[in-house]
Amino acid sequence: MNQKFAKWVKNAKASATREILMTTAKPGVISFAGGNPAPELFPVEAISTAFIQAISKEPYITLQYSMTEGNLKLREHIAELMDRRGVTCNPDQIAFVHGSQQAIDLLGRIYLEPGDLVLFEEISFHGAVNAFKPLGVRYRSVPMDDEGMVIDELKTILKHERPKLIYSMPTFHNPTGISLSSGRRKALALLCAEYNVSLIEDDAYGEFYYEGVRMPALKAFDENNYIHYISTFSKILSPGLRLGWAVTSEEVVQKLNIAQQGATVQVGTLLQHAVLNYLEKNQLPSHLEHLRNCYRERRDIMIDALSSDLPDFCLWNRPEGGFYLWGEVNETKFSVKELYNIALSKNVAFIPGDTFFIEGDGKDNTIRLSFSESNPQKIREGILRLSNAIEIYSQRM
Amino acid sequence: MNQKFAKWVKNAKASATREILMTTAKPGVISFAGGNPAPELFPVEAISTAFIQAISKEPYITLQYSMTEGNLKLREHIAELMDRRGVTCNPDQIAFVHGSQQAIDLLGRIYLEPGDLVLFEEISFHGAVNAFKPLGVRYRSVPMDDEGMVIDELKTILKHERPKLIYSMPTFHNPTGISLSSGRRKALALLCAEYNVSLIEDDAYGEFYYEGVRMPALKAFDENNYIHYISTFSKILSPGLRLGWAVTSEEVVQKLNIAQQGATVQVGTLLQHAVLNYLEKNQLPSHLEHLRNCYRERRDIMIDALSSDLPDFCLWNRPEGGFYLWGEVNETKFSVKELYNIALSKNVAFIPGDTFFIEGDGKDNTIRLSFSESNPQKIREGILRLSNAIEIYSQRM
Repeated sequence: MNQKFAKWVKNAKASATREILMTTAKPGVISFAGGNPAPELFPVEAISTAFIQAISKEPYITLQYSMTEGNLKLREHIAELMDRRGVTCNPDQIAFVHGSQQAIDLLGRIYLEPGDLVLFEEISFHGAVNAFKPLGVRYRSVPMDDEGMVIDELKTILKHERPKLIYSMPTFHNPTGISLSSGRRKALALLCAEYNVSLIEDDAYGEFYYEGVRMPALKAFDENNYIHYISTFSKILSPGLRLGWAVTSEEVVQKLNIAQQGATVQVGTLLQHAVLNYLEKNQLPSHLEHLRNCYRERRDIMIDALSSDLPDFCLWNRPEGGFYLWGEVNETKFSVKELYNIALSKNVAFIPGDTFFIEGDGKDNTIRLSFSESNPQKIREGILRLSNAIEIYSQRM
Repeated sequence: MNQKFAKWVKNAKASATREILMTTAKPGVISFAGGNPAPELFPVEAISTAFIQAISKEPYITLQYSMTEGNLKLREHIAELMDRRGVTCNPDQIAFVHGSQQAIDLLGRIYLEPGDLVLFEEISFHGAVNAFKPLGVRYRSVPMDDEGMVIDELKTILKHERPKLIYSMPTFHNPTGISLSSGRRKALALLCAEYNVSLIEDDAYGEFYYEGVRMPALKAFDENNYIHYISTFSKILSPGLRLGWAVTSEEVVQKLNIAQQGATVQVGTLLQHAVLNYLEKNQLPSHLEHLRNCYRERRDIMIDALSSDLPDFCLWNRPEGGFYLWGEVNETKFSVKELYNIALSKNVAFIPGDTFFIEGDGKDNTIRLSFSESNPQKIREGILRLSNAIEIYSQRM
């Protein structure tokens, strides 16, 4: 057994989140834990039509192997989609992956060697940490404030250390919902070039902007391909499909495709053609508008319910997009992990925020609530249950 | 850039085969190069129905994330399928992957560390070599004869070295079509246990037995889980889907699933449900019977054409199953690589056998012909073209 892998499996922090997600799957539980999109918003008919067409029209092509580089027309459509996100790229700068998690994995395998240093925002997504850990890398976190990663702090680190890679979620960050301000985007892109460090921009939530204004991707400020942009159809179309993509230099795309050949040969031809069929009918823009309206409503309802039902020592932020609210309990000795068990007994679930901290033990007074999967009625009921759980816990304290 | 990866990309022997496959995709070429299944044999209607049902019946489930462990009913069906291959296992011994290539990749990442030794049959599948190479392992080949891997040679190696892993295709081996004899299967399984070495049994072609008798998998002789069996729906159903599986101990399955979470999160829920729908209608056995009949005919037609059209110095084997014939040119100074260029100018393609040799320069008098993708008429025409190319080359020599 590979020692690093064995050690990683043993210590896998992921299992904390994973166990929570398994527990919360039980019937009757209102879960604000997972980052699932709302299933009732899946464009079921359109996806069905897209698959039927892909199979019936050219089955000899769509059911067969195809080149790892992937369908050119689909890459052209994604290039258009990137244009709307402020990024100009050609189809040869796009690589397909089985969900954006795989882009993290493959980029890690391309860039990282044992002992290398990887930087994360101080609170981050464990999928990334867990993709890099088996590579035997070191990791360190960069402080955040309500404008995202603190660039001065990053600069101080870059002056003293030589990180190989930065992993960042600049737009509607998971778990905090925070977006990197426009000024900091520019500064971050410049720092990457100045210190010759690559950065993975994970943009799973960029389309979910609720204040009418879309911020250009960090990659839009990248002039020399230091930034590897990754995104996915999981949240905007369906996670059950498993299609993500990376946008980077043609050179790195070639390396990703060679790595993909060793990893899984290719992303399914049928899936690529089905998503292409969906995009060709120009259904995505109106679907995204619909999703934004629905998720905005859920965010607002959850924020309203929290402020009316929960005690004043629970503080919540108000992200301008994404799937998550981030909270802090401003009360000494309050343990969110202890609250979690009471909440679960009241059939409401969330993820204690401490699991998202990259270094140290994490702050046990923080909490992530996802508003994406529950409809308005469930959100109201779930927050009432949470309020009830907090009351019970407060009396016990 | 990771040095080992960079070096691997630079030297990737895979590109030889890959470039051939790209070249042979041009219109008018009859290709015996790739290992594609015949597209006209895809069960198009049944696959279409399976997807429609998967999407329409339970879209909230099939289009959503699901647990990495995968659909239990589908694993139960695969356990039945394994039973027909002589392997008794429970569903928790089965892990899903995006095609069996990914099982090779993940098992490599679980088991191998830089410097570890991996053994291959002397002629082998480059997908496996290329999955392991970036891990910085050493590799060595075990001689083969017409009963497969020579067990005495393996034993000699095991006595002197400590390989971490053996990669083997005991049934209708790619590229030679050879099957490990029954006696050697037993001996190989025992050797793995005796020398405490794990073995990946890659069984992509086991269902394609043309002489009426199915040989039990090597895994059938494995009493203590030294053998990790991997297989795929690519050849028996459709490669455009990307669904493979591994059968091993529950402990290793758990490790595969943890590795899968870091690599791609999971295999698509929709795909799993579609394949389950297909299997639940019990369509696979008759489909496989149909495939065996068609591919057997193609094998026989190719062998007949080769013996009637080609000169006597070209020798071909007669595998009892699989997709490939393996040939040797018994003529000094004959270069199959030189023949390849002439053949391509005559619009017929194959893969020069030297690319399949694990160590050394390979034998430039060997050749792999795939009979799976071309219909009988094309096989006859293609072998005529090959005969023509050999004649031209012989005159030039």
